[in-house]
Amino acid sequence: MRMRNKPWAMDYLTENSHIVDVDGTYKTKIKEYFGNDNDIHIEVGTGMGQFITTLAKQNPHINYVGIEIEKNVLIRVLEKVLEEGLTNVRLLLYDANLLDEYFNKDEVSKIYLNFSDPWPKNRHEKRRLTYKSFLKQYKSILKDDGVLQFKTDNRGLFEYSLVSLNNFKTEFLEVNLDLHADEDEDNIRTEYEEKFSQKGFNIYKIVVKF
Amino acid sequence: MRMRNKPWAMDYLTENSHIVDVDGTYKTKIKEYFGNDNDIHIEVGTGMGQFITTLAKQNPHINYVGIEIEKNVLIRVLEKVLEEGLTNVRLLLYDANLLDEYFNKDEVSKIYLNFSDPWPKNRHEKRRLTYKSFLKQYKSILKDDGVLQFKTDNRGLFEYSLVSLNNFKTEFLEVNLDLHADEDEDNIRTEYEEKFSQKGFNIYKIVVKF
Repeated sequence: MRMRNKPWAMDYLTENSHIVDVDGTYKTKIKEYFGNDNDIHIEVGTGMGQFITTLAKQNPHINYVGIEIEKNVLIRVLEKVLEEGLTNVRLLLYDANLLDEYFNKDEVSKIYLNFSDPWPKNRHEKRRLTYKSFLKQYKSILKDDGVLQFKTDNRGLFEYSLVSLNNFKTEFLEVNLDLHADEDEDNIRTEYEEKFSQKGFNIYKIVVKF
Repeated sequence: MRMRNKPWAMDYLTENSHIVDVDGTYKTKIKEYFGNDNDIHIEVGTGMGQFITTLAKQNPHINYVGIEIEKNVLIRVLEKVLEEGLTNVRLLLYDANLLDEYFNKDEVSKIYLNFSDPWPKNRHEKRRLTYKSFLKQYKSILKDDGVLQFKTDNRGLFEYSLVSLNNFKTEFLEVNLDLHADEDEDNIRTEYEEKFSQKGFNIYKIVVKF
């Protein structure tokens, strides 16, 4: 997600280092950052943060980590965390390519990917968050019974992801080709999801185990 | 597919025993029935037969076997085979539950499932042609590099099949959630497919290897 550049973004993130890790200070020490042993769920690519902050409010005994490489986006999530006074959310300004350096092996219980960039051109396949190099990292940081949940409105990315996740030998637990047709109460919509569902696009979902 | 009962159907099929095997005469001897060693492709559930007869016309050096349990449906396929004078099609009045008794191990190169009955009720799961007991049979009769191609317009059946095929550890080669949006020249539409696509339903497709 691209946003207009805000020159003050980096200062704002750094000033809130009790919530945002901007320089990998807590690499391999995320439990220390939270100060407790609760389960850790992460969202790779936070967007505007409605998803992760809603989840965090509903589940005070789960620790949430929102990872986003774009500082002009991450400030919007930080604003929401501060407004809601959430203490079970940490934010990382971080490259998803290096997740397995930040988290320890078997440390994460659940990974969320929501409406990731589809990178439709073949030559950009390696940037898709369901490309095998990313799956390898998810597998490494997830606990044995941990799951990956993926939502998108992009048909091409979903088709690609079904094949990629299958070829990586993950086990499909759930596949839904029209999430909003029979929406569970516990589905939390992202800002993007809301907008694209209203336009009549299907929302696709898959949940897998590694 | 249900059709009005035609009292003469069985006689008509039996009279054409050079094309139709009504009583398992050629069980384990399908090559003998064709009289040559060409590759064998089968369709489980023929419907009205447009799919298999079109393929057979296009590919004279492939042997096609259409399997259908409903005699009142199979006569429509037989009519088409006779009209077109096709010599590379055989039809079986046969139960798909017993495929691995009819065909030898590693005998079939490709299996087609087109718009199979979705059996939407949970208690009928075992009747769906992508239930694991069927997959076990497909795996047994398919050659090592053989593939299964599955098309449907039924969202529930497709979601179920993605999970079932994944859990059975088949390898996904292709997934398409809107086949007609970017239809290949080589897609052959069934009668049913034509009708439901015109009504605006998505056609789903998956190709897997065992």
